[in-house]
Amino acid sequence: MTEDTGQRLRIGIPKGSLQETTKRLFHLAGFDLRISGRSYYPDIDDSEIQCILIRPQEMARYVEQGVLDCGITGLDWLLETGADVEQLADLKAPWPNYGTVRWVMAAKEDSPFATVKDLQGRRIATEAVGMTRRFLAEHQVEAQVEFSWGATEVKPPILADAIVDVSETGSSLRANKLKILHTVLESTPRLIANSASLEDPWRRDKLDRVLMLLKGAIAASTRVSLAMNVPRDCTETVLALLPALGTPTVSTLADESWVDISTVVEEKRVRDLLPKLYAAGARGIVELPINKIIE
Amino acid sequence: MTEDTGQRLRIGIPKGSLQETTKRLFHLAGFDLRISGRSYYPDIDDSEIQCILIRPQEMARYVEQGVLDCGITGLDWLLETGADVEQLADLKAPWPNYGTVRWVMAAKEDSPFATVKDLQGRRIATEAVGMTRRFLAEHQVEAQVEFSWGATEVKPPILADAIVDVSETGSSLRANKLKILHTVLESTPRLIANSASLEDPWRRDKLDRVLMLLKGAIAASTRVSLAMNVPRDCTETVLALLPALGTPTVSTLADESWVDISTVVEEKRVRDLLPKLYAAGARGIVELPINKIIE
Amino acid sequence: MTEDTGQRLRIGIPKGSLQETTKRLFHLAGFDLRISGRSYYPDIDDSEIQCILIRPQEMARYVEQGVLDCGITGLDWLLETGADVEQLADLKAPWPNYGTVRWVMAAKEDSPFATVKDLQGRRIATEAVGMTRRFLAEHQVEAQVEFSWGATEVKPPILADAIVDVSETGSSLRANKLKILHTVLESTPRLIANSASLEDPWRRDKLDRVLMLLKGAIAASTRVSLAMNVPRDCTETVLALLPALGTPTVSTLADESWVDISTVVEEKRVRDLLPKLYAAGARGIVELPINKIIE
Amino acid sequence: MTEDTGQRLRIGIPKGSLQETTKRLFHLAGFDLRISGRSYYPDIDDSEIQCILIRPQEMARYVEQGVLDCGITGLDWLLETGADVEQLADLKAPWPNYGTVRWVMAAKEDSPFATVKDLQGRRIATEAVGMTRRFLAEHQVEAQVEFSWGATEVKPPILADAIVDVSETGSSLRANKLKILHTVLESTPRLIANSASLEDPWRRDKLDRVLMLLKGAIAASTRVSLAMNVPRDCTETVLALLPALGTPTVSTLADESWVDISTVVEEKRVRDLLPKLYAAGARGIVELPINKIIE
Amino acid sequence: MTEDTGQRLRIGIPKGSLQETTKRLFHLAGFDLRISGRSYYPDIDDSEIQCILIRPQEMARYVEQGVLDCGITGLDWLLETGADVEQLADLKAPWPNYGTVRWVMAAKEDSPFATVKDLQGRRIATEAVGMTRRFLAEHQVEAQVEFSWGATEVKPPILADAIVDVSETGSSLRANKLKILHTVLESTPRLIANSASLEDPWRRDKLDRVLMLLKGAIAASTRVSLAMNVPRDCTETVLALLPALGTPTVSTLADESWVDISTVVEEKRVRDLLPKLYAAGARGIVELPINKIIE
Amino acid sequence: MTEDTGQRLRIGIPKGSLQETTKRLFHLAGFDLRISGRSYYPDIDDSEIQCILIRPQEMARYVEQGVLDCGITGLDWLLETGADVEQLADLKAPWPNYGTVRWVMAAKEDSPFATVKDLQGRRIATEAVGMTRRFLAEHQVEAQVEFSWGATEVKPPILADAIVDVSETGSSLRANKLKILHTVLESTPRLIANSASLEDPWRRDKLDRVLMLLKGAIAASTRVSLAMNVPRDCTETVLALLPALGTPTVSTLADESWVDISTVVEEKRVRDLLPKLYAAGARGIVELPINKIIE
Repeated sequence: MTEDTGQRLRIGIPKGSLQETTKRLFHLAGFDLRISGRSYYPDIDDSEIQCILIRPQEMARYVEQGVLDCGITGLDWLLETGADVEQLADLKAPWPNYGTVRWVMAAKEDSPFATVKDLQGRRIATEAVGMTRRFLAEHQVEAQVEFSWGATEVKPPILADAIVDVSETGSSLRANKLKILHTVLESTPRLIANSASLEDPWRRDKLDRVLMLLKGAIAASTRVSLAMNVPRDCTETVLALLPALGTPTVSTLADESWVDISTVVEEKRVRDLLPKLYAAGARGIVELPINKIIE
Repeated sequence: MTEDTGQRLRIGIPKGSLQETTKRLFHLAGFDLRISGRSYYPDIDDSEIQCILIRPQEMARYVEQGVLDCGITGLDWLLETGADVEQLADLKAPWPNYGTVRWVMAAKEDSPFATVKDLQGRRIATEAVGMTRRFLAEHQVEAQVEFSWGATEVKPPILADAIVDVSETGSSLRANKLKILHTVLESTPRLIANSASLEDPWRRDKLDRVLMLLKGAIAASTRVSLAMNVPRDCTETVLALLPALGTPTVSTLADESWVDISTVVEEKRVRDLLPKLYAAGARGIVELPINKIIE
Repeated sequence: MTEDTGQRLRIGIPKGSLQETTKRLFHLAGFDLRISGRSYYPDIDDSEIQCILIRPQEMARYVEQGVLDCGITGLDWLLETGADVEQLADLKAPWPNYGTVRWVMAAKEDSPFATVKDLQGRRIATEAVGMTRRFLAEHQVEAQVEFSWGATEVKPPILADAIVDVSETGSSLRANKLKILHTVLESTPRLIANSASLEDPWRRDKLDRVLMLLKGAIAASTRVSLAMNVPRDCTETVLALLPALGTPTVSTLADESWVDISTVVEEKRVRDLLPKLYAAGARGIVELPINKIIE
Repeated sequence: MTEDTGQRLRIGIPKGSLQETTKRLFHLAGFDLRISGRSYYPDIDDSEIQCILIRPQEMARYVEQGVLDCGITGLDWLLETGADVEQLADLKAPWPNYGTVRWVMAAKEDSPFATVKDLQGRRIATEAVGMTRRFLAEHQVEAQVEFSWGATEVKPPILADAIVDVSETGSSLRANKLKILHTVLESTPRLIANSASLEDPWRRDKLDRVLMLLKGAIAASTRVSLAMNVPRDCTETVLALLPALGTPTVSTLADESWVDISTVVEEKRVRDLLPKLYAAGARGIVELPINKIIE
Repeated sequence: MTEDTGQRLRIGIPKGSLQETTKRLFHLAGFDLRISGRSYYPDIDDSEIQCILIRPQEMARYVEQGVLDCGITGLDWLLETGADVEQLADLKAPWPNYGTVRWVMAAKEDSPFATVKDLQGRRIATEAVGMTRRFLAEHQVEAQVEFSWGATEVKPPILADAIVDVSETGSSLRANKLKILHTVLESTPRLIANSASLEDPWRRDKLDRVLMLLKGAIAASTRVSLAMNVPRDCTETVLALLPALGTPTVSTLADESWVDISTVVEEKRVRDLLPKLYAAGARGIVELPINKIIE
Repeated sequence: MTEDTGQRLRIGIPKGSLQETTKRLFHLAGFDLRISGRSYYPDIDDSEIQCILIRPQEMARYVEQGVLDCGITGLDWLLETGADVEQLADLKAPWPNYGTVRWVMAAKEDSPFATVKDLQGRRIATEAVGMTRRFLAEHQVEAQVEFSWGATEVKPPILADAIVDVSETGSSLRANKLKILHTVLESTPRLIANSASLEDPWRRDKLDRVLMLLKGAIAASTRVSLAMNVPRDCTETVLALLPALGTPTVSTLADESWVDISTVVEEKRVRDLLPKLYAAGARGIVELPINKIIE
């Protein structure tokens, strides 16, 4: 399909919690990305792309070194490594692990610690040592930051005074009777790129085209297509109800007293929109799923 | 999206066999209903709704008492409780456990019992004691009705003379060598509501809007959208083949000798319709899935 | 829906690796095919069809005998049995086990065997004894062909000198350090029919209609519908980009300076097409999934 | 092995949570009890026994009616039915679901209810209506007892004021923020029998022999065999440390300056006993598992 | 442990239904046999043994050819291949798939076929073509025997008139409404060996030692050790009750009025023996599991 | 059972791959250690012990700090942390993950690197940065050691020149075409303790008793008890065959021409021993499993 120019864009695919959704994102964008059990070089049905599975924690480092042209990782690990790379897009999407991840500073509910200021001289356990040190420095607090190999939330009060950790639903904090002192960072998945790669025209162009497809799939994930029959004289009323996203398509019907209107809307607005459209005269309102949308 | 008026519609979600499909029904209707492992108060992304998980057997009782404004339960348990509530809709749908449930009176194949009349003075085991007693009364038969804690179909002939039980595919009856004497009740899922709640304008309006979405999702579950290119002079022939559901949309094409016709039809009719449409001159016939339809 | 004429088309459904996808194919074609655990007579919601589960290896034999009117099996087993039946269609599709199956002749990487000629007088293990004997005969080689009950690929060099076996991804060959000497056959699923059945008008007609639906579902599996808004004066440029499959539909919009163009394209071409369509002026490009297409 | 006298002892095997352990108990007692998926008449390799699977809730009723000679059920359901049967043995054992089950009266932590006295006129939800009514009567409290079809612990405070329910680890109560007002009953599995069956010499004798084996298996489940070599002159010290359960066996060794002592002890005492035995001179102390013990 | 003489005994391990139990049998005999997912050369912790996984259907062929010194397969496949090998032992054991397998000739319950004589000129489907032909020849019946690739029991009456197939519990026959006409063969797992290998002293000796361990493990699987304390004057009575298997061990106790008796018995006899031993004066009767027994 | 002195020994239980086997080890030693899903404070049925789940990587740090009295971790992580603690025992056992773990330095098979000397100035990826730096220092090599977050074995040659990683079966190295340059460390599970805790008499004594039980369970895991009947005049021959572990017990039998000999031996030696014992005259040789042995 695509001619083999011999060139390849090297994309870092995040291994671990982001992996399944990344695979699905590429699938929705039109690529068949196959990650087999053992190999760290997933197959992709585009001869101009080479993929490598990399831990999110190491992604930015290898993009910075130029081993990869680009990659997907969380903002959290991007900042943690402090690597000098370009951020191309926020890929937040309503799929598992592609939402917002919140890093919080927390301590025992019954501890005397209420703000970061109270942690002067204390021990803080975290997987994100750099992020924590920067946060402490911003608040001019000096504390001992210890790297935690996991299960960070169970460490207070015996193994640490406070922690900086990810809080997904807050249920793990509650289960361990921890209170949140501060939100340290809100992170989402990002597409990052190596600066030199972006200056290469072929790589830049290829990357832009891949990004258009990824964004098209993400945009479609929260939208649906609505089509309806509307009495000709209700057209304006109905059009007024529809959101401004894209120009609604108005077509004539066999029965000239009706028109057909179709448009794309946020799925979440549909449940409010349908009763109003019906009340405005629309009939035969059909909602269809969509795969991609490029606005 | 929806303003928080402070009011909430209390909806009873049926726990157990109806639960998964009910969750899916709400999802298709546009609501994100999250039932977490332990909690009986599922989250829903509509601040005007509060959900509670309730066994179908107890649903009508709590709707009647006004603890709930409305709820979903089977016609069987609705009648069994004898509660004074309003039936708003039959939610039968082609999804697991949302079809018709049949309660039958059955006895051993080799027993002398042929009709309910033969059970005078006998023991009948059932989970639906009320339904069974009413059925016996209608047929002027007196028998001993014993509550069964389950596995009712294995009780004849040692532990009971006959049973009244649900027969899904009949395979359990066959496996236990039981014959059906009568169909006692055919039940489907129903949306029921508290009478007082229906008199409250805000609740009534909210409930109507929710019901429109539920019905739209159920209606869509058995339908698809068909679009096709038709030579202009075959238009009438093709339109004559299409069912009357909604007005078909006829649009002009770049090539003026053709028109485009699209409509929504029952999925089951498609396999008969396609060969006829093709024979009538339609080409490029495309079938698309739909999420919802409000006729 | 369909009148019960009393006649039935007997279709053989392949048991085993093709089974799940065959069920799905019928589902996409509009039939509800239910294969319950124990029964070999799956239910189908068409009173004019009777289904029987049969191993692919035995399918052609029973179609030839007229026990079945038609059935689905692989080209490999069709040839292996050498049965005298009609091939109606190649049902290759992008679903599990419905792709191309490759039978290869292989020997140990470090063996002296480089072509079939080197196997004169040797032992060859295979599940397809007939196919192997024919291949040897074509190459005028005489060798001992032994029926293998499975695990054929582990037999060289101790239990056999070479094998003829299915190579799906080649990974099993690599794992057993085997090299491919020849491709003996490339096989795909076929719809086959009994010659006498095809001469019966009712059976022929019924089979044609079923086949149209099966093909419609297969064709849809690799395609999507694209719809977009295009400035009126970019119409020609955009139409020139679209593939020739079917006539694109061009409709007028409320805003007369735009038109709406929709068409069906190969899903694989979308990722190349989208950037070009966008560059040509198309906006609000929406990709929708389709269930069936009859061209 | 056992002659077929034509007589059979009918034993009720409890279906549900007690089922797996009951099967294991019979296995350890030397019987092969096979419960196949669908049948309610498990096979047992003793032609003098016939087994029937019965819900614990219904066991006592059918034993009382004489449909069964004996059966295993919990004390809770035995009392709930109020059936007139004989209790032959408490089968409490350290296996899943064969321990003590505690029924408690509970209310919301933040409710005003502190004792049963506070529930006068209130609604109490429970699966054990009879047990609850008796408990209320004993405390001269009148309250409305409603049958609960399950998930009883989530009912307060909306659907009930208090509950009577099983509390296994207390974690379900904690998760629902309930406090325990009273322990209503502590229940363990019991072997019950029909009075008339016990008067039949053959049935009585058969039942006694079965019970000896069940008890032997239960007794062995918490015990182990200990064997050790002891210097002849330390014999008295070592024997003094051993518990009185059974007479320790003392044997002579090849080396006459040592004796061998073996005995059966509670497994829980072993960890305290071993260091003491070693200190007292015992060497080569070996602990062996046992299957059954008849003291 | 064992010196590496460089020689190896090649043992064929049956792949498929016998595999798991064979692994367990070797484990109980004291060997660690590791079958990893892909390899057909299981590891065993004895440098004098090499194992190869082989289908039971092909085992005898490869043992006959001398590719293997010995192997485990069923009597059925041994006879089916007609290979010239030595049968060393019947390995029947009370473990899954190591019991007796029964091959039966069966036809539809409502068919006119009552004995093999009625099948003259009919079609018989079977996986064991050789066994079936021999059986027909013995009864002087001529019929068409067709190889069946599986699901043989569903073939009558459409695809075959009768079948010869394995009947494990008879439930598959019942489910397909088949009646048994004859038992054609009762088969158990056998250890077979190549005649030449048996003449080699090293191989013969190694094989004898392996077989002693396999038999020791099988013998132990149905037996237990019983130990008890017996009043000295009851010794004779108790000894008379014990089966003759091995000589019971009688030891003196610290308390000289008692003796200790221990012996090995069939586990199945324990449930009859215990009440009798107790009645005869034995106390502290302990049953212990055993791993192996060499009588 | 044990008096509650109020004191508690704090034991660190390793979370992760060692966890399941550690739980089993404590169970075999006589303790009921319950690790529930969420809690990091497992319950143990000994009021003198408190357990905490800790990652092996952090175990030594917390034992050194005195937060724990003792804990189980691998020698690898003990050295990696460089913590100042006491090693009490090597707990190597034939259970999953309790065997020897080997850390190796590896590079691509086709790379020019043959020994650590060749890595001067190169990049080495590893999870054990300290261990790797020490190893390099010992060999006077300077290289860049990068912390790897996992999947270390796939990094050469793109992301690293060589690695230091765990090699369990070598299969992961082979799959990634890596060759081993050096074994850097062989590690087994160790019981470590805080020096101050060991000076406290109560803690020292408690720890000694726990360790005796742990060692007793580990010792038993590779041994079995053998009992046999031996003709009196073969006694010396048989005793000569038995290993020196413990003194064999020789008892008299009812039939005075025989004696009974029992002893404990390595399970692995049984398969060599049994044929020899039988040849030496032993009969009724019984092997029994054992739970613990304290020599």
